[in-house]
Amino acid sequence: MSAASIRTISIQEAVHGKNLAVAHENRERFGRCGILAANLLSSPGAGKTALLEATLRDTHISMPSAVIVGDLQTDNDAQRLGRWGATAIQVTTGDICHLDAGMVQRAVAELDLASLSVVYLENVGNLVCPTSFDLGESLRVALVSVTEGEDKPLKYPGAFKWADLILVTKIDLAAAVGFDRDTAITNLKRVSPAAQILEVSSRSGAGMEQWYETLRGRLPARERKP
Amino acid sequence: MSAASIRTISIQEAVHGKNLAVAHENRERFGRCGILAANLLSSPGAGKTALLEATLRDTHISMPSAVIVGDLQTDNDAQRLGRWGATAIQVTTGDICHLDAGMVQRAVAELDLASLSVVYLENVGNLVCPTSFDLGESLRVALVSVTEGEDKPLKYPGAFKWADLILVTKIDLAAAVGFDRDTAITNLKRVSPAAQILEVSSRSGAGMEQWYETLRGRLPARERKP
Repeated sequence: MSAASIRTISIQEAVHGKNLAVAHENRERFGRCGILAANLLSSPGAGKTALLEATLRDTHISMPSAVIVGDLQTDNDAQRLGRWGATAIQVTTGDICHLDAGMVQRAVAELDLASLSVVYLENVGNLVCPTSFDLGESLRVALVSVTEGEDKPLKYPGAFKWADLILVTKIDLAAAVGFDRDTAITNLKRVSPAAQILEVSSRSGAGMEQWYETLRGRLPARERKP
Repeated sequence: MSAASIRTISIQEAVHGKNLAVAHENRERFGRCGILAANLLSSPGAGKTALLEATLRDTHISMPSAVIVGDLQTDNDAQRLGRWGATAIQVTTGDICHLDAGMVQRAVAELDLASLSVVYLENVGNLVCPTSFDLGESLRVALVSVTEGEDKPLKYPGAFKWADLILVTKIDLAAAVGFDRDTAITNLKRVSPAAQILEVSSRSGAGMEQWYETLRGRLPARERKP
Protein backbone atom coordinates (compact mmCIF):
# COMPACT_ATOMS: atom_id res chain seq x y z
CA MET A 1 0.00 0.00 0.00
CA SER A 2 1.39 3.39 -1.00
CA ALA A 3 1.90 6.26 1.45
CA ALA A 4 -0.88 8.16 -0.34
CA SER A 5 -3.30 5.23 0.13
CA ILE A 6 -2.45 4.97 3.80
CA ARG A 7 -2.98 8.69 4.28
CA THR A 8 -6.29 8.52 2.40
CA ILE A 9 -7.49 5.71 4.63
CA SER A 10 -6.48 7.45 7.85
CA ILE A 11 -8.39 10.56 6.78
CA GLN A 12 -11.38 8.43 5.83
CA GLU A 13 -11.28 6.95 9.32
CA ALA A 14 -11.22 10.43 10.85
CA VAL A 15 -14.17 11.48 8.66
CA HIS A 16 -16.13 8.40 9.70
CA GLY A 17 -15.23 8.87 13.37
CA LYS A 18 -16.48 12.47 13.30
CA ASN A 19 -19.61 11.36 11.48
CA LEU A 20 -20.33 8.66 14.07
CA ALA A 21 -20.07 11.15 16.92
CA VAL A 22 -22.60 13.48 15.27
CA ALA A 23 -24.83 10.52 14.34
CA HIS A 24 -24.86 9.59 18.02
CA GLU A 25 -26.02 13.12 18.93
CA ASN A 26 -28.74 12.96 16.26
CA ARG A 27 -29.93 9.57 17.51
CA GLU A 28 -30.12 10.81 21.09
CA ARG A 29 -32.04 13.90 20.02
CA PHE A 30 -34.52 11.91 17.92
CA GLY A 31 -34.92 9.47 20.83
CA ARG A 32 -35.56 12.23 23.38
CA CYS A 33 -38.28 13.66 21.12
CA GLY A 34 -39.92 10.28 20.48
CA ILE A 35 -39.14 10.51 16.78
CA LEU A 36 -38.81 7.61 14.37
CA ALA A 37 -35.93 8.57 12.04
CA ALA A 38 -35.85 6.48 8.87
CA ASN A 39 -32.86 6.55 6.50
CA LEU A 40 -33.93 5.58 2.95
CA LEU A 41 -31.24 4.23 0.61
CA SER A 42 -31.49 3.10 -2.99
CA SER A 43 -30.30 3.51 -6.57
CA PRO A 44 -31.38 6.66 -8.36
CA GLY A 45 -34.92 6.11 -9.59
CA ALA A 46 -35.86 3.18 -7.34
CA GLY A 47 -38.81 5.22 -6.11
CA LYS A 48 -37.83 6.80 -2.78
CA THR A 49 -39.60 10.08 -3.48
CA ALA A 50 -42.70 8.40 -4.93
CA LEU A 51 -42.86 6.16 -1.84
CA LEU A 52 -42.61 9.17 0.46
CA GLU A 53 -45.22 11.13 -1.51
CA ALA A 54 -47.74 8.31 -1.07
CA THR A 55 -46.70 7.82 2.56
CA LEU A 56 -47.16 11.49 3.45
CA ARG A 57 -50.50 11.61 1.63
CA ASP A 58 -51.77 8.58 3.57
CA THR A 59 -50.16 9.00 7.00
CA HIS A 60 -49.08 12.61 7.59
CA ILE A 61 -52.25 13.37 9.59
CA SER A 62 -51.93 10.34 11.88
CA MET A 63 -48.10 10.49 12.05
CA PRO A 64 -46.91 14.08 11.53
CA SER A 65 -43.78 13.84 9.42
CA ALA A 66 -40.92 15.80 7.92
CA VAL A 67 -38.47 14.87 5.22
CA ILE A 68 -34.80 15.78 4.88
CA VAL A 69 -33.87 15.00 1.31
CA GLY A 70 -30.37 14.87 -0.13
CA ASP A 71 -29.59 15.50 -3.79
CA LEU A 72 -26.47 16.53 -5.68
CA GLN A 73 -28.47 19.25 -7.43
CA THR A 74 -32.05 20.58 -7.69
CA ASP A 75 -34.79 20.93 -5.10
CA ASN A 76 -37.32 18.98 -7.20
CA ASP A 77 -37.83 16.38 -4.49
CA ALA A 78 -38.57 18.86 -1.72
CA GLN A 79 -41.12 20.50 -4.01
CA ARG A 80 -42.80 17.16 -4.72
CA LEU A 81 -42.84 16.25 -1.04
CA GLY A 82 -44.06 19.64 0.20
CA ARG A 83 -47.47 19.10 -1.43
CA TRP A 84 -48.80 17.03 1.46
CA GLY A 85 -48.28 19.60 4.18
CA ALA A 86 -45.15 18.05 5.63
CA THR A 87 -41.99 20.14 5.94
CA ALA A 88 -39.44 19.02 3.35
CA ILE A 89 -35.90 20.31 3.64
CA GLN A 90 -33.62 19.92 0.66
CA VAL A 91 -29.93 19.37 1.32
CA THR A 92 -27.95 20.02 -1.86
CA THR A 93 -24.80 17.96 -1.49
CA GLY A 94 -22.93 19.28 -4.56
CA ASP A 95 -20.49 16.54 -5.51
CA ILE A 96 -20.86 14.54 -2.28
CA CYS A 97 -22.60 11.26 -3.00
CA HIS A 98 -24.39 10.76 0.35
CA LEU A 99 -25.97 12.53 3.31
CA ASP A 100 -23.83 12.67 6.43
CA ALA A 101 -24.78 13.14 10.07
CA GLY A 102 -23.68 16.79 10.09
CA MET A 103 -25.92 17.68 7.14
CA VAL A 104 -28.82 16.01 8.95
CA GLN A 105 -28.01 17.81 12.21
CA ARG A 106 -28.05 21.22 10.48
CA ALA A 107 -31.34 20.43 8.73
CA VAL A 108 -32.93 19.10 11.94
CA ALA A 109 -32.23 22.48 13.56
CA GLU A 110 -34.88 23.92 11.20
CA LEU A 111 -37.55 21.43 12.34
CA ASP A 112 -40.00 21.65 15.23
CA LEU A 113 -39.31 18.14 16.49
CA ALA A 114 -41.90 18.37 19.28
CA SER A 115 -44.67 18.44 16.66
CA LEU A 116 -43.39 15.42 14.72
CA SER A 117 -43.59 11.62 14.87
CA VAL A 118 -41.41 10.68 11.91
CA VAL A 119 -38.43 12.22 10.15
CA TYR A 120 -37.56 10.60 6.83
CA LEU A 121 -33.97 10.98 5.67
CA GLU A 122 -34.12 10.48 1.91
CA ASN A 123 -30.52 9.79 0.96
CA VAL A 124 -28.80 10.60 -2.34
CA GLY A 125 -29.60 7.90 -4.89
CA ASN A 126 -26.55 5.66 -4.68
CA LEU A 127 -26.02 2.06 -3.59
CA VAL A 128 -22.43 2.58 -2.43
CA CYS A 129 -21.47 5.83 -0.68
CA PRO A 130 -24.44 6.26 1.70
CA THR A 131 -24.04 2.79 3.19
CA SER A 132 -21.13 3.67 5.48
CA PHE A 133 -22.57 6.92 6.88
CA ASP A 134 -24.71 6.52 9.97
CA LEU A 135 -27.11 9.48 10.11
CA GLY A 136 -28.48 8.72 13.58
CA GLU A 137 -31.47 6.88 12.17
CA SER A 138 -33.43 4.26 14.14
CA LEU A 139 -34.65 2.51 10.99
CA ARG A 140 -32.60 1.88 7.88
CA VAL A 141 -34.69 1.13 4.81
CA ALA A 142 -33.17 -0.10 1.55
CA LEU A 143 -35.28 0.04 -1.61
CA VAL A 144 -34.74 -1.99 -4.76
CA SER A 145 -37.14 -1.80 -7.69
CA VAL A 146 -38.21 -4.78 -9.78
CA THR A 147 -36.83 -3.01 -12.85
CA GLU A 148 -33.23 -3.10 -11.55
CA GLY A 149 -32.68 -6.85 -11.80
CA GLU A 150 -32.64 -9.60 -9.21
CA ASP A 151 -28.85 -9.56 -8.83
CA LYS A 152 -28.53 -6.12 -7.23
CA PRO A 153 -28.37 -7.34 -3.58
CA LEU A 154 -25.38 -9.54 -4.46
CA LYS A 155 -23.64 -6.80 -6.41
CA TYR A 156 -24.19 -4.03 -3.84
CA PRO A 157 -24.34 -6.00 -0.58
CA GLY A 158 -23.44 -3.03 1.65
CA ALA A 159 -26.70 -1.28 0.80
CA PHE A 160 -28.82 -4.22 1.95
CA LYS A 161 -26.73 -5.93 4.64
CA TRP A 162 -27.37 -3.26 7.30
CA ALA A 163 -31.00 -2.58 6.40
CA ASP A 164 -33.70 -3.23 9.00
CA LEU A 165 -36.30 -3.24 6.29
CA ILE A 166 -36.06 -3.86 2.54
CA LEU A 167 -38.75 -2.59 0.20
CA VAL A 168 -39.04 -4.22 -3.19
CA THR A 169 -40.64 -1.34 -5.11
CA LYS A 170 -42.63 -0.93 -8.36
CA ILE A 171 -44.15 -4.41 -8.04
CA ASP A 172 -46.92 -3.26 -10.39
CA LEU A 173 -44.22 -3.59 -13.11
CA ALA A 174 -43.13 -7.11 -12.07
CA ALA A 175 -44.85 -8.90 -14.96
CA ALA A 176 -43.83 -6.29 -17.57
CA VAL A 177 -40.14 -6.68 -16.72
CA GLY A 178 -40.23 -10.46 -16.15
CA PHE A 179 -39.22 -10.03 -12.49
CA ASP A 180 -38.01 -13.32 -10.98
CA ARG A 181 -39.39 -12.93 -7.46
CA ASP A 182 -37.95 -16.15 -5.99
CA THR A 183 -34.42 -15.33 -7.11
CA ALA A 184 -34.68 -11.75 -5.88
CA ILE A 185 -35.96 -12.76 -2.42
CA THR A 186 -33.34 -15.52 -2.15
CA ASN A 187 -30.59 -13.02 -2.98
CA LEU A 188 -31.93 -10.48 -0.49
CA LYS A 189 -32.12 -13.09 2.29
CA ARG A 190 -28.62 -14.27 1.50
CA VAL A 191 -27.19 -10.77 1.96
CA SER A 192 -29.51 -9.67 4.75
CA PRO A 193 -31.00 -12.66 6.58
CA ALA A 194 -32.60 -10.65 9.39
CA ALA A 195 -34.20 -7.79 7.46
CA GLN A 196 -37.95 -7.62 7.02
CA ILE A 197 -38.87 -7.63 3.31
CA LEU A 198 -41.99 -5.98 1.93
CA GLU A 199 -43.15 -5.78 -1.68
CA VAL A 200 -44.81 -2.48 -2.51
CA SER A 201 -46.07 -0.23 -5.26
CA SER A 202 -46.57 3.47 -4.62
CA ARG A 203 -48.61 3.61 -7.81
CA SER A 204 -51.04 0.73 -7.30
CA GLY A 205 -50.97 0.91 -3.49
CA ALA A 206 -50.05 -2.77 -3.18
CA GLY A 207 -48.27 -3.54 0.09
CA MET A 208 -48.41 0.08 1.27
CA GLU A 209 -50.59 -0.67 4.32
CA GLN A 210 -47.96 -3.13 5.54
CA TRP A 211 -45.28 -0.45 5.15
CA TYR A 212 -47.39 1.99 7.17
CA GLU A 213 -47.99 -0.69 9.83
CA THR A 214 -44.25 -1.28 10.06
CA LEU A 215 -43.66 2.44 10.55
CA ARG A 216 -46.35 2.63 13.27
CA GLY A 217 -44.85 -0.38 15.02
CA ARG A 218 -41.43 1.33 15.03
CA LEU A 219 -42.59 4.62 16.60
CA PRO A 220 -40.72 4.99 19.89
CA ALA A 221 -42.51 5.67 23.17
CA ARG A 222 -42.80 9.43 23.51
CA GLU A 223 -41.07 11.36 26.24
CA ARG A 224 -41.34 14.83 24.72
CA LYS A 225 -38.21 16.47 26.02
CA PRO A 226 -36.87 18.15 22.92
CA MET B 1 -12.43 24.88 5.75
CA SER B 2 -10.84 22.61 8.37
CA ALA B 3 -7.29 21.29 8.12
CA ALA B 4 -8.71 17.77 7.65
CA SER B 5 -10.89 18.92 4.73
CA ILE B 6 -7.95 20.65 3.08
CA ARG B 7 -5.82 17.54 3.48
CA THR B 8 -8.64 15.36 2.09
CA ILE B 9 -8.93 17.61 -0.96
CA SER B 10 -5.20 17.70 -1.62
CA ILE B 11 -5.07 13.90 -1.48
CA GLN B 12 -8.09 13.70 -3.79
CA GLU B 13 -6.23 15.94 -6.21
CA ALA B 14 -3.19 13.67 -6.03
CA VAL B 15 -5.40 10.62 -6.65
CA HIS B 16 -7.03 12.31 -9.65
CA GLY B 17 -3.67 13.50 -10.99
CA LYS B 18 -2.27 9.95 -10.82
CA ASN B 19 -5.43 8.63 -12.44
CA LEU B 20 -5.19 11.13 -15.31
CA ALA B 21 -1.61 10.14 -16.04
CA VAL B 22 -2.56 6.46 -16.30
CA ALA B 23 -5.70 7.33 -18.30
CA HIS B 24 -3.43 9.14 -20.76
CA GLU B 25 -1.28 5.99 -21.12
CA ASN B 26 -4.40 3.87 -21.66
CA ARG B 27 -5.75 6.27 -24.29
CA GLU B 28 -2.44 6.24 -26.15
CA ARG B 29 -2.30 2.46 -26.07
CA PHE B 30 -5.90 2.07 -27.30
CA GLY B 31 -5.18 4.64 -30.04
CA ARG B 32 -2.01 2.87 -31.19
CA CYS B 33 -3.96 -0.39 -31.51
CA GLY B 34 -6.88 1.20 -33.36
CA ILE B 35 -9.26 0.35 -30.53
CA LEU B 36 -12.51 2.11 -29.71
CA ALA B 37 -12.66 2.21 -25.91
CA ALA B 38 -16.15 2.97 -24.58
CA ASN B 39 -16.77 3.82 -20.91
CA LEU B 40 -20.35 2.97 -19.91
CA LEU B 41 -21.85 4.78 -16.90
CA SER B 42 -25.27 4.47 -15.31
CA SER B 43 -27.29 3.72 -12.19
CA PRO B 44 -27.34 0.11 -11.04
CA GLY B 45 -29.92 -1.71 -13.14
CA ALA B 46 -30.13 0.76 -16.03
CA GLY B 47 -29.23 -2.06 -18.38
CA LYS B 48 -25.50 -1.80 -19.14
CA THR B 49 -24.92 -5.56 -19.09
CA ALA B 50 -28.08 -6.33 -21.07
CA LEU B 51 -27.03 -3.73 -23.68
CA LEU B 52 -23.58 -5.28 -23.95
CA GLU B 53 -24.97 -8.83 -24.18
CA ALA B 54 -27.12 -7.82 -27.17
CA THR B 55 -24.25 -5.80 -28.66
CA LEU B 56 -21.78 -8.68 -28.45
CA ARG B 57 -24.35 -11.10 -29.87
CA ASP B 58 -25.00 -8.82 -32.86
CA THR B 59 -21.58 -7.29 -33.54
CA HIS B 60 -18.78 -9.38 -32.02
CA ILE B 61 -18.05 -11.08 -35.35
CA SER B 62 -17.87 -7.83 -37.35
CA MET B 63 -16.21 -5.84 -34.52
CA PRO B 64 -14.21 -8.20 -32.26
CA SER B 65 -14.74 -6.96 -28.73
CA ALA B 66 -13.73 -7.41 -25.12
CA VAL B 67 -15.35 -6.15 -21.94
CA ILE B 68 -13.74 -5.00 -18.71
CA VAL B 69 -16.49 -4.94 -16.14
CA GLY B 70 -16.35 -3.39 -12.69
CA ASP B 71 -18.46 -4.56 -9.77
CA LEU B 72 -18.15 -4.27 -6.00
CA GLN B 73 -18.77 -7.99 -5.69
CA THR B 74 -19.60 -11.05 -7.84
CA ASP B 75 -18.48 -12.02 -11.32
CA ASN B 76 -22.05 -12.47 -12.60
CA ASP B 77 -21.61 -9.88 -15.34
CA ALA B 78 -18.46 -11.41 -16.78
CA GLN B 79 -20.25 -14.76 -16.87
CA ARG B 80 -23.22 -13.23 -18.71
CA LEU B 81 -20.95 -11.44 -21.17
CA GLY B 82 -18.66 -14.42 -21.81
CA ARG B 83 -21.44 -16.30 -23.58
CA TRP B 84 -20.91 -14.53 -26.90
CA GLY B 85 -17.27 -15.49 -27.34
CA ALA B 86 -15.85 -12.13 -26.27
CA THR B 87 -13.28 -11.98 -23.49
CA ALA B 88 -14.88 -10.50 -20.37
CA ILE B 89 -12.62 -9.53 -17.49
CA GLN B 90 -14.23 -8.87 -14.13
CA VAL B 91 -12.64 -6.26 -11.90
CA THR B 92 -13.95 -6.66 -8.36
CA THR B 93 -13.59 -3.22 -6.79
CA GLY B 94 -14.49 -4.16 -3.20
CA ASP B 95 -15.76 -0.98 -1.59
CA ILE B 96 -14.56 1.36 -4.35
CA CYS B 97 -17.51 2.81 -6.21
CA HIS B 98 -15.93 3.23 -9.65
CA LEU B 99 -13.34 1.86 -12.07
CA ASP B 100 -10.10 3.83 -12.26
CA ALA B 101 -7.47 4.03 -14.98
CA GLY B 102 -5.07 1.74 -13.08
CA MET B 103 -7.66 -1.05 -12.80
CA VAL B 104 -8.28 -0.74 -16.54
CA GLN B 105 -4.56 -0.76 -17.31
CA ARG B 106 -4.04 -3.99 -15.32
CA ALA B 107 -7.04 -5.65 -17.01
CA VAL B 108 -5.91 -4.52 -20.48
CA ALA B 109 -2.61 -6.33 -19.91
CA GLU B 110 -4.61 -9.59 -20.10
CA LEU B 111 -6.11 -8.73 -23.52
CA ASP B 112 -4.73 -9.37 -27.00
CA LEU B 113 -5.42 -5.85 -28.26
CA ALA B 114 -4.19 -6.60 -31.78
CA SER B 115 -7.15 -8.93 -32.30
CA LEU B 116 -9.77 -6.43 -31.08
CA SER B 117 -11.77 -3.50 -32.44
CA VAL B 118 -13.68 -2.45 -29.33
CA VAL B 119 -13.06 -2.58 -25.58
CA TYR B 120 -16.11 -1.81 -23.47
CA LEU B 121 -15.41 -0.52 -19.96
CA GLU B 122 -18.58 -1.31 -18.01
CA ASN B 123 -18.30 0.88 -14.94
CA VAL B 124 -19.69 0.19 -11.46
CA GLY B 125 -23.39 1.13 -11.35
CA ASN B 126 -23.29 4.59 -9.84
CA LEU B 127 -24.20 8.06 -11.15
CA VAL B 128 -21.70 9.91 -8.96
CA CYS B 129 -18.28 8.38 -8.32
CA PRO B 130 -17.37 7.15 -11.83
CA THR B 131 -17.96 10.55 -13.41
CA SER B 132 -14.66 12.10 -12.31
CA PHE B 133 -12.40 9.18 -13.26
CA ASP B 134 -11.11 9.25 -16.82
CA LEU B 135 -10.30 5.67 -17.85
CA GLY B 136 -8.61 6.56 -21.13
CA GLU B 137 -11.80 5.99 -23.11
CA SER B 138 -12.46 7.56 -26.51
CA LEU B 139 -16.23 7.38 -26.09
CA ARG B 140 -18.14 8.05 -22.90
CA VAL B 141 -21.65 6.61 -22.89
CA ALA B 142 -24.19 7.43 -20.17
CA LEU B 143 -27.28 5.25 -19.87
CA VAL B 144 -30.56 6.21 -18.20
CA SER B 145 -33.57 3.90 -18.24
CA VAL B 146 -37.15 5.07 -18.71
CA THR B 147 -37.98 3.48 -15.34
CA GLU B 148 -35.70 5.87 -13.42
CA GLY B 149 -37.69 9.06 -13.94
CA GLU B 150 -37.24 12.02 -16.24
CA ASP B 151 -35.48 14.15 -13.60
CA LYS B 152 -32.30 12.08 -13.30
CA PRO B 153 -30.16 14.19 -15.67
CA LEU B 154 -30.88 17.29 -13.54
CA LYS B 155 -30.21 15.48 -10.27
CA TYR B 156 -26.99 13.77 -11.39
CA PRO B 157 -25.64 16.20 -14.00
CA GLY B 158 -22.03 15.00 -13.75
CA ALA B 159 -22.95 11.63 -15.20
CA PHE B 160 -24.47 13.15 -18.35
CA LYS B 161 -22.58 16.41 -18.84
CA TRP B 162 -19.38 14.75 -20.10
CA ALA B 163 -21.05 12.00 -22.12
CA ASP B 164 -20.46 11.83 -25.87
CA LEU B 165 -23.50 9.64 -26.25
CA ILE B 166 -26.56 9.14 -24.04
CA LEU B 167 -28.65 6.00 -24.33
CA VAL B 168 -32.21 6.13 -23.02
CA THR B 169 -32.70 2.43 -22.27
CA LYS B 170 -35.66 0.08 -21.74
CA ILE B 171 -37.87 2.09 -24.09
CA ASP B 172 -40.05 -1.00 -24.46
CA LEU B 173 -41.28 -0.10 -20.93
CA ALA B 174 -41.97 3.58 -21.73
CA ALA B 175 -45.75 3.20 -21.87
CA ALA B 176 -45.93 0.92 -18.80
CA VAL B 177 -44.11 3.46 -16.62
CA GLY B 178 -45.75 6.56 -18.12
CA PHE B 179 -42.40 7.86 -19.39
CA ASP B 180 -42.58 11.55 -20.34
CA ARG B 181 -40.25 11.55 -23.34
CA ASP B 182 -40.34 15.29 -24.05
CA THR B 183 -39.40 16.21 -20.48
CA ALA B 184 -36.64 13.60 -20.37
CA ILE B 185 -35.07 14.74 -23.65
CA THR B 186 -35.37 18.41 -22.66
CA ASN B 187 -33.61 17.68 -19.36
CA LEU B 188 -30.87 15.69 -21.10
CA LYS B 189 -30.25 18.46 -23.63
CA ARG B 190 -30.16 21.05 -20.86
CA VAL B 191 -27.39 19.18 -19.04
CA SER B 192 -25.57 17.91 -22.11
CA PRO B 193 -26.37 20.01 -25.20
CA ALA B 194 -23.77 18.40 -27.46
CA ALA B 195 -24.29 14.70 -26.69
CA GLN B 196 -25.94 12.42 -29.21
CA ILE B 197 -29.08 10.84 -27.72
CA LEU B 198 -30.41 7.45 -28.78
CA GLU B 199 -33.45 5.59 -27.47
CA VAL B 200 -32.92 1.85 -27.29
CA SER B 201 -34.25 -1.43 -25.95
CA SER B 202 -31.96 -4.43 -25.62
CA ARG B 203 -35.06 -6.58 -25.25
CA SER B 204 -37.14 -5.47 -28.22
CA GLY B 205 -34.15 -4.43 -30.34
CA ALA B 206 -35.56 -0.94 -30.92
CA GLY B 207 -32.84 1.60 -31.71
CA MET B 208 -30.06 -0.98 -31.45
CA GLU B 209 -28.99 -0.67 -35.11
CA GLN B 210 -28.41 3.06 -34.58
CA TRP B 211 -26.24 2.26 -31.55
CA TYR B 212 -24.20 -0.20 -33.61
CA GLU B 213 -23.87 2.38 -36.40
CA THR B 214 -22.59 4.93 -33.89
CA LEU B 215 -20.00 2.45 -32.64
CA ARG B 216 -18.87 1.66 -36.19
CA GLY B 217 -18.61 5.36 -36.98
CA ARG B 218 -16.38 5.84 -33.94
CA LEU B 219 -13.87 3.10 -34.76
CA PRO B 220 -10.48 4.78 -35.19
CA ALA B 221 -8.33 4.23 -38.23
CA ARG B 222 -6.14 1.22 -37.55
CA GLU B 223 -2.40 1.40 -37.26
CA ARG B 224 -1.79 -1.92 -35.56
CA LYS B 225 1.26 -1.16 -33.47
CA PRO B 226 0.34 -2.68 -30.11
